[in-house]
Amino acid sequence: MMTGIMTFNVGETVDLHLLIKQMTKGTTNTGKPFLTLILQDKSGEMEAKLWDASEQDEKAYQPETIVKVTGDVHSYRGKNQLKIKQIRPASPADGHTISDFLQTAPLSIDEMTSKITQYIFEMRNPNIQRITRHLIKKYQKPFLEYPAATKNHHEFVSGLAYHVVSMLDLSKAIASLYPSLDTDLLYAGVILHDLGKVIELSGPTSTTYTIEGNLIGHISIMVNEIGKTAEELGIEGEEVMILQHLVLSHHGKAEWGSPKPPMIREAEILHYIDNVDAKMNMLDRALERVKPGEYTERIFPLDNRTFYKPTFHK
Amino acid sequence: MMTGIMTFNVGETVDLHLLIKQMTKGTTNTGKPFLTLILQDKSGEMEAKLWDASEQDEKAYQPETIVKVTGDVHSYRGKNQLKIKQIRPASPADGHTISDFLQTAPLSIDEMTSKITQYIFEMRNPNIQRITRHLIKKYQKPFLEYPAATKNHHEFVSGLAYHVVSMLDLSKAIASLYPSLDTDLLYAGVILHDLGKVIELSGPTSTTYTIEGNLIGHISIMVNEIGKTAEELGIEGEEVMILQHLVLSHHGKAEWGSPKPPMIREAEILHYIDNVDAKMNMLDRALERVKPGEYTERIFPLDNRTFYKPTFHK
Amino acid sequence: MMTGIMTFNVGETVDLHLLIKQMTKGTTNTGKPFLTLILQDKSGEMEAKLWDASEQDEKAYQPETIVKVTGDVHSYRGKNQLKIKQIRPASPADGHTISDFLQTAPLSIDEMTSKITQYIFEMRNPNIQRITRHLIKKYQKPFLEYPAATKNHHEFVSGLAYHVVSMLDLSKAIASLYPSLDTDLLYAGVILHDLGKVIELSGPTSTTYTIEGNLIGHISIMVNEIGKTAEELGIEGEEVMILQHLVLSHHGKAEWGSPKPPMIREAEILHYIDNVDAKMNMLDRALERVKPGEYTERIFPLDNRTFYKPTFHK
Amino acid sequence: MMTGIMTFNVGETVDLHLLIKQMTKGTTNTGKPFLTLILQDKSGEMEAKLWDASEQDEKAYQPETIVKVTGDVHSYRGKNQLKIKQIRPASPADGHTISDFLQTAPLSIDEMTSKITQYIFEMRNPNIQRITRHLIKKYQKPFLEYPAATKNHHEFVSGLAYHVVSMLDLSKAIASLYPSLDTDLLYAGVILHDLGKVIELSGPTSTTYTIEGNLIGHISIMVNEIGKTAEELGIEGEEVMILQHLVLSHHGKAEWGSPKPPMIREAEILHYIDNVDAKMNMLDRALERVKPGEYTERIFPLDNRTFYKPTFHK
Amino acid sequence: MMTGIMTFNVGETVDLHLLIKQMTKGTTNTGKPFLTLILQDKSGEMEAKLWDASEQDEKAYQPETIVKVTGDVHSYRGKNQLKIKQIRPASPADGHTISDFLQTAPLSIDEMTSKITQYIFEMRNPNIQRITRHLIKKYQKPFLEYPAATKNHHEFVSGLAYHVVSMLDLSKAIASLYPSLDTDLLYAGVILHDLGKVIELSGPTSTTYTIEGNLIGHISIMVNEIGKTAEELGIEGEEVMILQHLVLSHHGKAEWGSPKPPMIREAEILHYIDNVDAKMNMLDRALERVKPGEYTERIFPLDNRTFYKPTFHK
Amino acid sequence: MMTGIMTFNVGETVDLHLLIKQMTKGTTNTGKPFLTLILQDKSGEMEAKLWDASEQDEKAYQPETIVKVTGDVHSYRGKNQLKIKQIRPASPADGHTISDFLQTAPLSIDEMTSKITQYIFEMRNPNIQRITRHLIKKYQKPFLEYPAATKNHHEFVSGLAYHVVSMLDLSKAIASLYPSLDTDLLYAGVILHDLGKVIELSGPTSTTYTIEGNLIGHISIMVNEIGKTAEELGIEGEEVMILQHLVLSHHGKAEWGSPKPPMIREAEILHYIDNVDAKMNMLDRALERVKPGEYTERIFPLDNRTFYKPTFHK
Repeated sequence: MMTGIMTFNVGETVDLHLLIKQMTKGTTNTGKPFLTLILQDKSGEMEAKLWDASEQDEKAYQPETIVKVTGDVHSYRGKNQLKIKQIRPASPADGHTISDFLQTAPLSIDEMTSKITQYIFEMRNPNIQRITRHLIKKYQKPFLEYPAATKNHHEFVSGLAYHVVSMLDLSKAIASLYPSLDTDLLYAGVILHDLGKVIELSGPTSTTYTIEGNLIGHISIMVNEIGKTAEELGIEGEEVMILQHLVLSHHGKAEWGSPKPPMIREAEILHYIDNVDAKMNMLDRALERVKPGEYTERIFPLDNRTFYKPTFHK
Repeated sequence: MMTGIMTFNVGETVDLHLLIKQMTKGTTNTGKPFLTLILQDKSGEMEAKLWDASEQDEKAYQPETIVKVTGDVHSYRGKNQLKIKQIRPASPADGHTISDFLQTAPLSIDEMTSKITQYIFEMRNPNIQRITRHLIKKYQKPFLEYPAATKNHHEFVSGLAYHVVSMLDLSKAIASLYPSLDTDLLYAGVILHDLGKVIELSGPTSTTYTIEGNLIGHISIMVNEIGKTAEELGIEGEEVMILQHLVLSHHGKAEWGSPKPPMIREAEILHYIDNVDAKMNMLDRALERVKPGEYTERIFPLDNRTFYKPTFHK
Repeated sequence: MMTGIMTFNVGETVDLHLLIKQMTKGTTNTGKPFLTLILQDKSGEMEAKLWDASEQDEKAYQPETIVKVTGDVHSYRGKNQLKIKQIRPASPADGHTISDFLQTAPLSIDEMTSKITQYIFEMRNPNIQRITRHLIKKYQKPFLEYPAATKNHHEFVSGLAYHVVSMLDLSKAIASLYPSLDTDLLYAGVILHDLGKVIELSGPTSTTYTIEGNLIGHISIMVNEIGKTAEELGIEGEEVMILQHLVLSHHGKAEWGSPKPPMIREAEILHYIDNVDAKMNMLDRALERVKPGEYTERIFPLDNRTFYKPTFHK
Repeated sequence: MMTGIMTFNVGETVDLHLLIKQMTKGTTNTGKPFLTLILQDKSGEMEAKLWDASEQDEKAYQPETIVKVTGDVHSYRGKNQLKIKQIRPASPADGHTISDFLQTAPLSIDEMTSKITQYIFEMRNPNIQRITRHLIKKYQKPFLEYPAATKNHHEFVSGLAYHVVSMLDLSKAIASLYPSLDTDLLYAGVILHDLGKVIELSGPTSTTYTIEGNLIGHISIMVNEIGKTAEELGIEGEEVMILQHLVLSHHGKAEWGSPKPPMIREAEILHYIDNVDAKMNMLDRALERVKPGEYTERIFPLDNRTFYKPTFHK
Repeated sequence: MMTGIMTFNVGETVDLHLLIKQMTKGTTNTGKPFLTLILQDKSGEMEAKLWDASEQDEKAYQPETIVKVTGDVHSYRGKNQLKIKQIRPASPADGHTISDFLQTAPLSIDEMTSKITQYIFEMRNPNIQRITRHLIKKYQKPFLEYPAATKNHHEFVSGLAYHVVSMLDLSKAIASLYPSLDTDLLYAGVILHDLGKVIELSGPTSTTYTIEGNLIGHISIMVNEIGKTAEELGIEGEEVMILQHLVLSHHGKAEWGSPKPPMIREAEILHYIDNVDAKMNMLDRALERVKPGEYTERIFPLDNRTFYKPTFHK
Repeated sequence: MMTGIMTFNVGETVDLHLLIKQMTKGTTNTGKPFLTLILQDKSGEMEAKLWDASEQDEKAYQPETIVKVTGDVHSYRGKNQLKIKQIRPASPADGHTISDFLQTAPLSIDEMTSKITQYIFEMRNPNIQRITRHLIKKYQKPFLEYPAATKNHHEFVSGLAYHVVSMLDLSKAIASLYPSLDTDLLYAGVILHDLGKVIELSGPTSTTYTIEGNLIGHISIMVNEIGKTAEELGIEGEEVMILQHLVLSHHGKAEWGSPKPPMIREAEILHYIDNVDAKMNMLDRALERVKPGEYTERIFPLDNRTFYKPTFHK
């Protein structure tokens, strides 16, 4: 992205079309209203302040609105912030659509669909294959659009599918070195492990938790779905229970949200594959924003650590 | 029980019909075979040693066999142990059946059935009532026979149903003091919370965990059952999710095995009702074996504490 | 409360008599003084800002002053806040007294006194009865006025006595189902468990911790008081030690502030009764402020969880 | 000790007068009775086996009996064990008394009394001095005889007083380097911190916990005693509360058994002085049993660590 | 292994040449000496009992002796045990050498050397390459012979080198999927991470911890070695510090023995690669001993879990 | 310090020369720039605000600049803050140097050097003495100037050397009471334990962590230095490993940052000596700022506790 919002530094002047991701109304200490906007494009997002906002402004600048903004970047509590000088809703003539401003997976939906189809095709156990194929078809549309999480990792459009595709490739690579691993179970575990997020989360953008997400959670949701699918397809072998166990145990420990710890070889390894892919995603995005010899921001899900980019890296 | 095995003290001679609960073959340091038997009757159980056991003995004294035993009680590592002097399989003429030797709930199956039926009858929300009634009917037989656990509390025939009946009475008493509590949810939560144990456990006697019990667990098993039941009955309201949540959260915290923490008032209180009833069961049984001024054995699930019986208690 | 401060929503204009609970002086970024007031009435409390405050204002608006206030409610960081437009001290002619503005227990002091007297009357062990009666008389006045805590639960005038009365009723209900429980010990344990708070805390309103509260704590304070009372009354039986143990162990575990864990049946159950009543109090107050289908605010002492009110509740 | 039991190695033959500390009756796998004796003298203690014991033996060899023993030392599970060849009760003519066999503090009771008296004499605050003197007088006899614990450190006759004297010397040395420390508080804290053990423990030998020890504990016992003493002496200043706080907080953290954490400078340092003296006692006794270049046994209260004695130490 | 000791079941008679791994002398309850031997061959190891052992036996059957043994396998506390009927030291004529009985890595030393050489050759950063090559040469002999641990995983001859080779292959596979990873750092981190074990551990067989292993540990040992190597080679760039950090942080967290947590992308991933390879090694060896539908023994370093082998696996 | 910045209270007017320790630029809600300065002199430091700051101000008031300031002290979030009315850079004619404004150790560098030299002189083991002397000479200059930490304790110029001197005196006092302690090891351990901070930290003032400090840490840095020194001096005895162990283990537990727990008597005691001296430093400085009957601020590294100054202390 040539001129994305994340490429601007303190002191520079921004003049861009951006999408409003979030809007909050505030009042200054002296009682004057202002708007705090989160503005985004494909490069990332930045907080912006619109001082002396009128009631009309509040109505005009709702989330999911495209705007044309001019303003100055300054630093507030260690983060860049935009002080808006001029703002107006984009006109149709500007020729933008919302999807122009959303970060998405680096692979297209077609590419991801094709890869997942191929992995399912490679399965040899018909029970595992049929259940996996049935569920991925049932939830195909949201699966290909949802993020993998509301924050932390793969929190972008199609992040869930992209996380699954990366994990499938990683599974294949690992299984080629450890031939005792059952790739049918690994691939099915990868594909199904987070599929319950299409019910746990609200949608591909401005993502929040649904009530069912909060009270039941994606793990139990998918365990139920596997059970129902097996019944619908008339499948009765131990594979059903094993697939449910893979989903149930993929968080590794009770205190990390796993109703059961892994008790199958592939369940143990699935947990590691999930971790490696999620952490690489977090590390890459944090490190690409800093120069050699610098530290990243603290990364909360990595025990709030900062990471250092060696001077001999580019 | 007048003359049960638990009423004998060190130095006394036992002469009783007893049931073999468990048998293990051993070899002494000097290479001679012996059998270790767990012998039980309604009063409880005691470990027994049959020295110089022949291969014939090994075949004759399998679990679930009723035997006539004579022997002396002595103390081994702080616990009473029976040194068998004479043993023979009971003859039909002795007129005993296995159930004569099993500890059971203090209420009859009829009494318990009638109480539970009444509580279900009192429910006012038809969705909650129908799901609960359907599931209790579906698993009625094992529900009325299974223990509530393999050890620690209510680990006797019909222990599960007895635990549920006690908790129902406790729920009613508490709800009468805190009228904001929804008794429909409380009663249904109590009845369903451990019902998955009829699949998690192997049966009413010599109870162990099934493979499904180890890999999926009674909580997830019942959450699935509620989902399937709702589908079969065509019930779609939020009650389904709330009932699933009550089961999912009744262990209170992730590290205590709860896939979700309680997020509904009745879920929070269900967790306490479960605790109070289980702990009263453990405390009562440990304390009734000691005299005023004495301590109980250490009770493992109560943080391995011992409890003291005040001298002014009887 | 028809028109209490808690009944106003964002955007509405308040015009009420209110009590100042707390006052802090501040300075805006631009150096101008302002006052932050916590204003309360029986319905609850709200933070308020008085901008451009003079030194005279600071003297006039001290805690425990009744004021007449006009202002607008707006939202600040997710909580309602009052921007004061007009404020003046209430005149005697307005006819208000401080107690008109304080939240109190739903039972009158007479009702609570009468219930507690009855429970003490029902005790059969004279040693337990005499010690309990002596201590409740010695601290009767503060016991009937103090809150049960500075925040979290029962943090209102007479909250301590109300918490005790609720726990007594709960004890009675539970003991009727588990007849092995010694109601003398349960009732005495309930009445004495938090009585040390009349020394730990500073008073019924604007409650803080005393130095003795911080350095010794209500548990050790009351254990000492029981010892002294027994000596004064010439009581020497084991009951003294058991009552001290009930107080010492009622927080359940060392890490929750219990010098000893429960080692008496009634001590174990007392801990649960305390929890159930405190949590019901927190849950009821949080849930009555939200509508069906909504979540409560996070409740800090309940592991910072939010609770959901099902749509089929009213 | 020239010829103490602890000086014998595997393969050597013992021929000594020893004291029976503990006796347990056992039965071999083949049903023959034997006695396990813990035999001690001033050098330490060793487990011994008397095979083929008669009922007469069982009566003759009760705890606190002095015996003449011949036997061989061999190794059992990494510890030395004595196989008794000959044993008889000592005759009066042998001229031994029980105290000849008990390990005691390296200082005499007179020396310790004199040191403690001197430290109390040096106190300048009369309230602190009077309370400390009163309590040390009240419990003088057991204080001078009891161990400081049932095991782990200073678990010998007069161990409590010896621990206190060492800590007083350590307090003086530290306070001379950090003049802000109030020696009155430090000395009083040291003298009183474990004094409750004279009630918590059963006596100077074969020490166990009393019921009051288990249910109330030495900390709360002494906090009560300080309160009562102050009342008896008519002392009312803040010193009473501070002394109680020193005792209450000397275990440092709630999870280590401290009802309150230290909130006074001298309380914080008292906790460290207690630790240094207890740990030096454990380390010295473990290290004096091994040669340079060897490791000690695992020391349970030091996180079960072993300690290494450097080759350049003697 | 056709006829290895691990292939015998309870009730079968063994007649094999075996290596004594460990010997302990014991005494039965009745005072008779016996020897407990751990006997091994390439298939694994089994405990054996030689009853009524003479002093001559004790001298003859020291560790690292090859013996010819006949005996019966029976079960003792859930594990197979050999009751020796006949035993004699192997004669030279039997034609066995110790290495015939030791479990070794599935790759030859030549194959492993060649793979590691190739990975070092592929490094592009000369500083990293030179330090790694220098250290692997310096410790080449023990590196190729030592186990990776005394127990749990890769605890066989050449286990350390085999663990490193597997991790190198895994690193290459992962880095090909996540191109931001610096393979120079990954390969060097893998090769050096456990190299300090050649000083921490005592040797390739009967492995124990050295004093330096206990007091300093393999991590600090290798960090020092990297520093010294850099100095010897005159290398000064940041690479030295980064290599030290990779070794220092590879246990992931302070409580898992890591002096520093990972703060470099490759350090984070190195920790996962180490885990995956160690766990696959443990899982494969535990699961190959059980049949489909069975559970493995509990695996201590995997949180003491048992693992289930699905019935549809072979 | 007569007129230091820490002696001013809310409402008073400051007119002082001060040193700028830190400067941050900010923007008010209304977009106006201001500077936040941390101003210090020997008495301590205070935050100050310079409103309506020009770009020229930003250049003039960089860290390490001496300024002449007039302003009013007011309270902001419970801490004193200075609102600057007038500020100008100090002129050379004012006759101040930076060191006039820095808090330093209460002992002069000469006094500390002389004490440490004497302690090294008293060592009897030549290996320990030579290594210690070599390292203290190698890092003499930074050792005598650096603080012991960036915050919490001894965070002033020469704080590191002062901490070491205090610990040496404390070691001597303790060793005189426990003669089994090896003073050579204790003194060397004290002198070396934190010496790695001269590489971990950036310098005597405005101290931050270096990259090597973050990635390797002062413990591993010094362990390496000891190894290199021994090599340079041709020393080979076990003393080298023991000195490394003392440094490695002085944080006591893995979770407190210790790569190894103490396994040597002197290592265990070194950990306590370090703690007592650090905590006395924190306690003294916090308590000297409050009056009898008051509490200190919360002290973060002391578990965030506040401490109470008894009314009978001055």
